[in-house]
Amino acid sequence: MSRTREFARLPGFRDFPPEEMALRNHLFDAWRRVSRRYGFLEYDGPPLEELELYTQKSGDEIVGQLYTFTDKGGREVSLRPEMTPSLARILGERSRAMPKPIRWFSIPQLFRYERQQRGRLREHFQWNVDLVGADGVEADAEVLAVALDGLRELGLGVDDIRARVSDRRLLAALLTSVGVPEGSLLATYAVVDKVEREPRERIAERLTEEVGLAQATVGGILDLFDEPGLEPVARAFAQDPEVTRRVAEMREFMATLEDLGLADFVEFDLTIVRGLAYYTGIVFEVFDAQGEFRAICGGGRYDDLLELVGGEPLSAVGFGMGDVVLADLLAERDLAPAYRRAVDHFIVVIGDEQASLARRVARALRDAGRSVVYGVRGQSVRKQFSAAANEGAREVIILGPDEVAREVAMLRDMESGEEREVPLDGLLNPSPAVRGEARSAESGGNRSQAAGES
Amino acid sequence: MSRTREFARLPGFRDFPPEEMALRNHLFDAWRRVSRRYGFLEYDGPPLEELELYTQKSGDEIVGQLYTFTDKGGREVSLRPEMTPSLARILGERSRAMPKPIRWFSIPQLFRYERQQRGRLREHFQWNVDLVGADGVEADAEVLAVALDGLRELGLGVDDIRARVSDRRLLAALLTSVGVPEGSLLATYAVVDKVEREPRERIAERLTEEVGLAQATVGGILDLFDEPGLEPVARAFAQDPEVTRRVAEMREFMATLEDLGLADFVEFDLTIVRGLAYYTGIVFEVFDAQGEFRAICGGGRYDDLLELVGGEPLSAVGFGMGDVVLADLLAERDLAPAYRRAVDHFIVVIGDEQASLARRVARALRDAGRSVVYGVRGQSVRKQFSAAANEGAREVIILGPDEVAREVAMLRDMESGEEREVPLDGLLNPSPAVRGEARSAESGGNRSQAAGES
Repeated sequence: MSRTREFARLPGFRDFPPEEMALRNHLFDAWRRVSRRYGFLEYDGPPLEELELYTQKSGDEIVGQLYTFTDKGGREVSLRPEMTPSLARILGERSRAMPKPIRWFSIPQLFRYERQQRGRLREHFQWNVDLVGADGVEADAEVLAVALDGLRELGLGVDDIRARVSDRRLLAALLTSVGVPEGSLLATYAVVDKVEREPRERIAERLTEEVGLAQATVGGILDLFDEPGLEPVARAFAQDPEVTRRVAEMREFMATLEDLGLADFVEFDLTIVRGLAYYTGIVFEVFDAQGEFRAICGGGRYDDLLELVGGEPLSAVGFGMGDVVLADLLAERDLAPAYRRAVDHFIVVIGDEQASLARRVARALRDAGRSVVYGVRGQSVRKQFSAAANEGAREVIILGPDEVAREVAMLRDMESGEEREVPLDGLLNPSPAVRGEARSAESGGNRSQAAGES
Repeated sequence: MSRTREFARLPGFRDFPPEEMALRNHLFDAWRRVSRRYGFLEYDGPPLEELELYTQKSGDEIVGQLYTFTDKGGREVSLRPEMTPSLARILGERSRAMPKPIRWFSIPQLFRYERQQRGRLREHFQWNVDLVGADGVEADAEVLAVALDGLRELGLGVDDIRARVSDRRLLAALLTSVGVPEGSLLATYAVVDKVEREPRERIAERLTEEVGLAQATVGGILDLFDEPGLEPVARAFAQDPEVTRRVAEMREFMATLEDLGLADFVEFDLTIVRGLAYYTGIVFEVFDAQGEFRAICGGGRYDDLLELVGGEPLSAVGFGMGDVVLADLLAERDLAPAYRRAVDHFIVVIGDEQASLARRVARALRDAGRSVVYGVRGQSVRKQFSAAANEGAREVIILGPDEVAREVAMLRDMESGEEREVPLDGLLNPSPAVRGEARSAESGGNRSQAAGES
């Protein structure tokens, strides 16, 4: 036990001192409230899984980014980079005995490790919501509604956020229609996923060289993304029955979101492809409306995944929403609650002779559900009042020798500064707190937002 | 994406499907409520730290059990086996600017990896509570009170749990008094830590051979543990001023717990040593009163640790309480809440023509804070009622063509079976939920326990 150097946290990891933890709890509380309003049940899995659970089913994009290592038992393992494979594994063991659909949510911490990415976080928390065993586009709409309501619960409205939606099957029908062979579809997705971030010449080059598509097909693909809205696509491919079928489903999806009061938040956008290989239908991402930040949320339908990792064949749709971009957006919109400490009572003693009484009062008030702090032994009265202010005490209870001799205590309301005497007996035998819950030591203002934006 | 084998979770890790997650949340909610009642603020750190943060300051016991590996950047890292080193590191960066004392708590997931330990868990969750920058035994008593009230909050009373308390300095004074040289104290602690689990002959042998103590000293040590209560020790060493001073402090500690209403939960026990090397004063463990389980909670004073990992010299006292033994004890005492699902409303549609209206009703009720589930498209009415029962719906809202034509819906109370008609308009424009909080989809009965056991 010799004294040595100072330590720092690992690069890419965050500490959560109380002010950061209060913000994290603010997000988690909102996510939990909204999940429950939609009837979703919370679950969790281990932060560490067998490596193959991830390499098995994901596209190439994820594999190089895994936080992977060999454990002491020689197993190849990985810190979880996403929750869906764990969900699939857990349901694989038990879904056959469960009524469908299954509505589950979780808030895991996820991990990535890319080398040579200075300043990039290697962990984040992600709200995961999955609806398993329901086929129709109503299920897709219900899941997107959970995501949007989670953001509305945090105060974000239709001026702040926008969901962009597409459909892998519609995109497949369109690509097939302009000449992409079925075997080249996944490779084509990977290239057109970048269509908004790379110049058209680069996209054309990659479609030609990497995917090996003919000149005419490449031209047809680029034309698709010139007008990526639903109506232009529907008009241009009105003769294609598969495209027409998928367009009708997309309209039904939009009508469902209209019923749910969220249509103004949603727009069709063919450029939304999603990186992961396992999506099979509608896909969506949520962005800030000004387009200043990276995506806040991404999700979609993945009907084959559960069977792939050994479960029963079950359709599924879900999303993940990270805490990092969302916290940045809330801060920019002035929607992150101000951090302030708060306890119900701080007990000040004038002399150490009142210390025992202070503890008995503290005990009685805590048993009644209140939050109570008292001063450290030997602290001056001035220091005790300074500590009370620092703790955010609503009320200070002052125990002085004269008052105690008369079996009373002085209460000072810390906001108004008003003082009044109360019988000690009432403090030692308080009525239970009305709300049954102590004033939080880290409450942060408006936790529940009005919900009339849409 | 070829189909392959089934996956299992890694050995020693747990999944938390909703019924297990509800119990975990039941513990966490109680721990958070009690922490806040005592004015403690929640924080968190990363689940992964530099290996040396742990090898630096812990006794040998911990080192062989670390879940350690080399990351892709060549760093020696470890999944956190305990929270205190992270706390010390975080405070080391910022405590100088903070008013003292500092009251912080956390509920981290912790990890151990011992080879050849079949069936033993490699992770658990642990409630960590630390009071930093307060010296007196009142601070030690306050921290033990948090632990005991956390257990009372879960329904455990004085017949269920017992805290056993000792003091490293008292033990040091006693050992010195019977002839243990100062340089052999830590090694002696490690042996007498096992005094209740190993036969006396084995203890004597280890003290002689491993620690190298003289015959008379070994005899003196064993005599100490024949009557490990406070009064026998005080009587036998009444001439030793250091022992007398530490006995007086222990009595003050007990008197403080008396004020806090918890004296009946606490007993002095010299055999409580605690494995970790960094404790410097009072140490304690909480057990079930019948002694059937391993310790539920352990903690104590560690006044040198923060300076050791690079912070300012700050006294500190804290504890950790794990979720595993506690959950076993709650189950055995029938105090684990029964799991039951619960939503406020399930909407049943007689035909698909009411599906759009069902979604509009769901949206309105959810915006008012209620939890609402509706059936999947095409489900028969019978299946929808079965789904409503499965979700634990309090009330079913039935939308049939005749009722909707009359602008009403039928409500069925699922407990009483009573039905009544209400205007659709009221459902589409509900008053906000009185409590502002949806009925939890995983509430589990009595969340707040009466607190009059002691």
